Amino acid sequence: MMPSAAFSNSPAADALESDPAKMSWMVGSPPPPERIIRFEDGSYFQYPQMRWSVAHFRELMPTTNVSRGIGAPNTLERSLQAGIDEVSFVPMGSDRPMTWRDSLLANYTDGIVVLHKGRVVYERYFGALKPEGQHAAMSVTKTFVGTLAAMMVADGTLDPDRKVVEYVPELGKSAFGSATVRQLMDMTTGIRFSENYADPKADVWAHAAAGNPLPKPKDYTGPRSYYEFLQTVQPEGVHGEAFHYRTANTDALGWVMARVSGKSVAQLLSECIWSKLGAEQDAYMTVDSTGTPFAGGGLNAGLRDLARFGEMIRNDGQYNGQQVLPKAAVDDIRRGASKEFFAKAGYPLLTGWSYHDMWWHTHNEHGAFMARGVYGQALYIDPKAEAVIARFASHPVAANAANDATSLPAYDAVAKYLMSR
Amino acid sequence: MMPSAAFSNSPAADALESDPAKMSWMVGSPPPPERIIRFEDGSYFQYPQMRWSVAHFRELMPTTNVSRGIGAPNTLERSLQAGIDEVSFVPMGSDRPMTWRDSLLANYTDGIVVLHKGRVVYERYFGALKPEGQHAAMSVTKTFVGTLAAMMVADGTLDPDRKVVEYVPELGKSAFGSATVRQLMDMTTGIRFSENYADPKADVWAHAAAGNPLPKPKDYTGPRSYYEFLQTVQPEGVHGEAFHYRTANTDALGWVMARVSGKSVAQLLSECIWSKLGAEQDAYMTVDSTGTPFAGGGLNAGLRDLARFGEMIRNDGQYNGQQVLPKAAVDDIRRGASKEFFAKAGYPLLTGWSYHDMWWHTHNEHGAFMARGVYGQALYIDPKAEAVIARFASHPVAANAANDATSLPAYDAVAKYLMSR
Repeated sequence: MMPSAAFSNSPAADALESDPAKMSWMVGSPPPPERIIRFEDGSYFQYPQMRWSVAHFRELMPTTNVSRGIGAPNTLERSLQAGIDEVSFVPMGSDRPMTWRDSLLANYTDGIVVLHKGRVVYERYFGALKPEGQHAAMSVTKTFVGTLAAMMVADGTLDPDRKVVEYVPELGKSAFGSATVRQLMDMTTGIRFSENYADPKADVWAHAAAGNPLPKPKDYTGPRSYYEFLQTVQPEGVHGEAFHYRTANTDALGWVMARVSGKSVAQLLSECIWSKLGAEQDAYMTVDSTGTPFAGGGLNAGLRDLARFGEMIRNDGQYNGQQVLPKAAVDDIRRGASKEFFAKAGYPLLTGWSYHDMWWHTHNEHGAFMARGVYGQALYIDPKAEAVIARFASHPVAANAANDATSLPAYDAVAKYLMSR
Repeated sequence: MMPSAAFSNSPAADALESDPAKMSWMVGSPPPPERIIRFEDGSYFQYPQMRWSVAHFRELMPTTNVSRGIGAPNTLERSLQAGIDEVSFVPMGSDRPMTWRDSLLANYTDGIVVLHKGRVVYERYFGALKPEGQHAAMSVTKTFVGTLAAMMVADGTLDPDRKVVEYVPELGKSAFGSATVRQLMDMTTGIRFSENYADPKADVWAHAAAGNPLPKPKDYTGPRSYYEFLQTVQPEGVHGEAFHYRTANTDALGWVMARVSGKSVAQLLSECIWSKLGAEQDAYMTVDSTGTPFAGGGLNAGLRDLARFGEMIRNDGQYNGQQVLPKAAVDDIRRGASKEFFAKAGYPLLTGWSYHDMWWHTHNEHGAFMARGVYGQALYIDPKAEAVIARFASHPVAANAANDATSLPAYDAVAKYLMSR
C-alpha cells in the first residue's frame, strides 16, 4: 500500500532518537492516544511513525500470505566476521571516511545480513525489526515481480515481444496497451505517471487512492482498484526509448502475469520462490479492496529470507538443493540493459547503470546488481566477491539518493574486504 | 473480528454446492464484481461467502502475527488408518447411523486431523482450507487465552482470587470490576452481554462495532475499541453462581493479562506457546483500530498446529522436547468446574458438562475436554484414548448445536475405535 497522505520529509531526528522502541509507538494496553498509529489518517506513513509501520504493515491493513510451505527451513550457516564493523569507506560527496558500523545508523538501517559464499558473516537488527519479523520491502517488491516475469519468459509462458493488450485487453485504451511486455519489464514505456511524492496532484497519489483498501469516500469518483487505475494511465513520450522509473509498470506487469498464469503475484511468489527457498518465514503482500496484491511495492518479508533469495540468484537459480528458477531466467537478469536508456533518466549518483527485469545494474568491475526500495531497502549481489547483502531500512527521506551516499560505497567496500579474507 | 452485519442462517446448500472453489469467490484478475468478497459491507460473514472468508480473514482486515519463530518445525509422524472413514456412530437426535466420512460433509468440515499417541492417523482438507493455510478459530481462541491465564496462575504472575479492578482500574465502573479473575476464566461473571446474533440490538454487535478496525462513521458515538467497550458492560445477575457463556469475559481476561505481562495476547501466544510447539506456520489474530487483538475470537491458525497444541495439553504440557506449559497449569485445566453452574446455562446437548479455564469438559468416561468455535471448529482431547482431534469447519448455522449432533458422537466413536486397535 502506498500512503494516502504526503510523505513527511522533516529534518531527521537521528536514528537512535527516532527508534520506535524509544518512541513507544503502540506500547501499552491500550497505548496512550498520542502513541497510537492508525492507517486511516495517514500518520502511519509519516516520519517518525513510519519507522514503526515498516515492520507492522499487516497490523494496519489487509494483506495476503506468501506461504513458505510447512517444511523445515533451509539452514543458513554462520561464520561471523567481526572485522566488518571497522571496514572504512568514503561516502559519495564527502571527503571524510566512515566505518561500516557508523553507516548503519547514518542511513537508518533496521536490519542487515551479509552472506559470503552463502554463509552469514554479518547480521544486525535495529529499530522495529527482529529476525522473526517482516519488513516492508517497498520497491524491492518490483524485483521479485520482474524475476518471476523473467522466469515466465524463460519457460515460454510469457512472450516479451507481445503487446500488453494481447494479454490484458482491458488495458487497450491505456498507454500500456501498445507497449510490449519487455518494455514493462525494463520500464521503458512512455506513460504519464508522476512519482513526485511532494506533489499532492502526482499520479502516484491517484494510484494510492485506487489501491486503498478502506471503503471509498462517498464523493470519490476515481478508479477503485489497482486494475481500474491502470486502465486510466495516459501516454507520455514513446515506448522503448528510455528508462523511466514508474511503479505502475510493475502493477501492469503483475496484471499480465496474473492473467497468463491464473494466479496472483502473491501466489506465484509462494509457489515459485518462497516455498522452494527453504524460507524460514512466510512473507505477505498488501492488497486492494478487490484482493489484488500491490505488485509495485506491497511485499513484506523476513530479512534472512531476502538474503536467501539473493543467494539463489547469485547461484544461477540453484539453492536449497534444487533449481528454484531456470538458469536462463537468471542469465537474462544478469545481462542488464541499455546504459544509454538509463542515462536519460538522470540519476546523478548512478552513472553507467542500467535497469533490467526490474533489477538495478551497477555495471561496476564486480558486475554487482541490486534491488532497491525507497527507504533504503536493498538486496545487493556482488558476483565477483561471492557476496550478498540484504538490508531493510527506514530513512526519513523517501528517496534512494538519501541512502546511496552511505550505502553503495559501503557495500562495495565490504565486498572487497570479504574478497581479501 | 466479529461481523458488522447479522449472521445469515438461510437454508444450507450442501457442503459440496457451497464449496468456495465451486463458487469461484475471488477468482480472476480481477474477480467478477459479484464474486468479490468485501469486509466493509459485511458480506464476508454471510453464508456462503463465509466459507471462503474463514480461510482468508487477513485479506479482509488488519491482523497481527503470532510468530512460530524461525527454527525447524516439530515433525508430526504419520500412521494413517484407513478404517476411520468407516467408523459408524448415531447422531444425536437421530436413529440412523452415519459414517465418519459422511459426517465430515454433513457438518461442513474444512479440515480435520486425528492424532493417536501423537501420530497423525487421519488428515483431510475440504473447502477453502489447505495444510499450508490458516483458518479462523473463532471461539477456540478463548481456550488459548484461558490456557495462557492458567499458565500465569501456575507461575504466580496472576492471582485468580483478586478482583479485576485491581489489575485494570479502568474496568472499575463496569460489571467486570467486582468479578474475580477466576470468574472471568470460568465465565461465571454476572454481566449483561447478549450473544443472540439474530437480534440486531444484541450487545455482541456493539462489541463488534467497537472492535471494527475500519474508520468509525461520522455519526458513531459508541465505544471505539474493545477496551472502551468493556468499560461499558453492565451487571446482570450475580458473580460466581452460574456459567454464562459471554465472549466479553475473554476480552476482559485478555486485558488483565496484557496489563500484568506488558504483552498483548498475541505476543503471549507467540512467546509462551507458538514458538515452543515447533509450529509449522505462524498464526495470527485480528486487531481493533488501537492494535488490540480480539481475545474472544480473533485467532487464525494452521490445523496441524492446532493439533500440536492439543497434543501438548494431552501430554501435561510437555511437547517438542520441552515443558511448554507448567504441568500445574494443565492439571488445573483438566480439573474442570462445577456441573451445577454449567447446567444453569441450559445446553440440552451438553448434559453433565462444565467449563473451566475456557475449556469445555464433557466429564464422560474418558474425561474428554475440548475447545469449541461457532462454526464447528473444535479441539477434542480424549485422554483415555490418547487421542486428539483438531477440526476446522464453516457450518452455515452459527451455533454449536448445529454441529454437535454429528460431531460429538463421531469424536467419541473414533476415539473408541483407536483404543480398540
